[in-house]
Amino acid sequence: MSATVPVVERVLSANDAVAAEVRARLDEKGIFCINLMASPGAGKTSLIERTVEALKGEIAIGMINGDTSAAAFDAERSQRAGAASVHVNTGGKCHLEAAMVRDALSLLPLDGIRLLLIENVGNLVCPMSWKLGAHVNVLIGSTPEGDDKPYKYPKMYAGVDVVVLNKIDLLPYVEFDCGRFLRGVEALNPGLRTFRLSCRTGEGLEEWFAWLREKARPAR
Amino acid sequence: MSATVPVVERVLSANDAVAAEVRARLDEKGIFCINLMASPGAGKTSLIERTVEALKGEIAIGMINGDTSAAAFDAERSQRAGAASVHVNTGGKCHLEAAMVRDALSLLPLDGIRLLLIENVGNLVCPMSWKLGAHVNVLIGSTPEGDDKPYKYPKMYAGVDVVVLNKIDLLPYVEFDCGRFLRGVEALNPGLRTFRLSCRTGEGLEEWFAWLREKARPAR
Repeated sequence: MSATVPVVERVLSANDAVAAEVRARLDEKGIFCINLMASPGAGKTSLIERTVEALKGEIAIGMINGDTSAAAFDAERSQRAGAASVHVNTGGKCHLEAAMVRDALSLLPLDGIRLLLIENVGNLVCPMSWKLGAHVNVLIGSTPEGDDKPYKYPKMYAGVDVVVLNKIDLLPYVEFDCGRFLRGVEALNPGLRTFRLSCRTGEGLEEWFAWLREKARPAR
Repeated sequence: MSATVPVVERVLSANDAVAAEVRARLDEKGIFCINLMASPGAGKTSLIERTVEALKGEIAIGMINGDTSAAAFDAERSQRAGAASVHVNTGGKCHLEAAMVRDALSLLPLDGIRLLLIENVGNLVCPMSWKLGAHVNVLIGSTPEGDDKPYKYPKMYAGVDVVVLNKIDLLPYVEFDCGRFLRGVEALNPGLRTFRLSCRTGEGLEEWFAWLREKARPAR
């Protein structure tokens, strides 16, 4: 099996070059881009819906939704919420790659967009290895997944720029020790920016919106 | 990127051959083996703990726990519950492979085991492509993940033999339509065996235990 490793490394390094191209294109257009990663069901699409609903009047938002199949449920949800969306079918792959984002960019009205939200495939392992050219990598965790996730998926928790803990409305009903979770995050990624919120009740969303408003300002 | 596809296909076909070896070894020893797959945090380790606690007096159980890192939290939890366990570090890979299971088997006391539970890496995409030689592939879903998961991860839901829906104790607090979930499962995988349970409250576990007792009988 070791014979495949050099191929994987070559592919990843080619991906990094495309990610740099994507970043240059985004910067040229003045677009701030976020790569949202999470387990399946942690709330990527819900956070995007809430964000688009809240900010669409003030910031023009574009979306790229990665899915392992041709089903475009998430892209449709974002579109209904009011964002220009492109659905990317990864063809069974468990992550987005920079070339998929580059191709999706050509389908979006870039001159009219200031914030681009990329919804990666639901997976806590591989998406971290594939840079997309985004300015910020965000990991969404959720309370029902358990407070042990930073310890079990350390590469993901160590590699992101922001952690959002979603579904805090379920804290009374699940076994989740916020202290243990945050100690794990802090050990792997000291000083990391974290948000605690509930897409269902809206608690904590204002802080997230304020951060996005700040980041998506034209002169940054 | 297409240059890598033939390599992947070769590797998968080599994996299938090793999976057949694993199956032959299990059958020779009269061991019934289950491959447990799920999103991170859906409850693989919890279901294993409850199962080992309930059945260890009547069925000798062995465990193989796959993790993407050297941290052996899940293997330690299974061991504390009373099963002979081997921790497999996938070295960052997002799935177990048959060769990892074959190597782990050599570390287990096979003559004393009748039921082998394999805990795959938390991931709803790749584990389905890598056969391990198990007799039954089980997918654990959980209510907080949302009722859209069969529609969004169709390959996984279509490819398994059993679906366990965990965390039914959270149904009053999450938006989850059991009918929509089960219609998705049934459309992809007609007649599939399903269980609804809560590892936290114990509701529904007896049915799961009864099914395992039946499956792990010496003369099957």
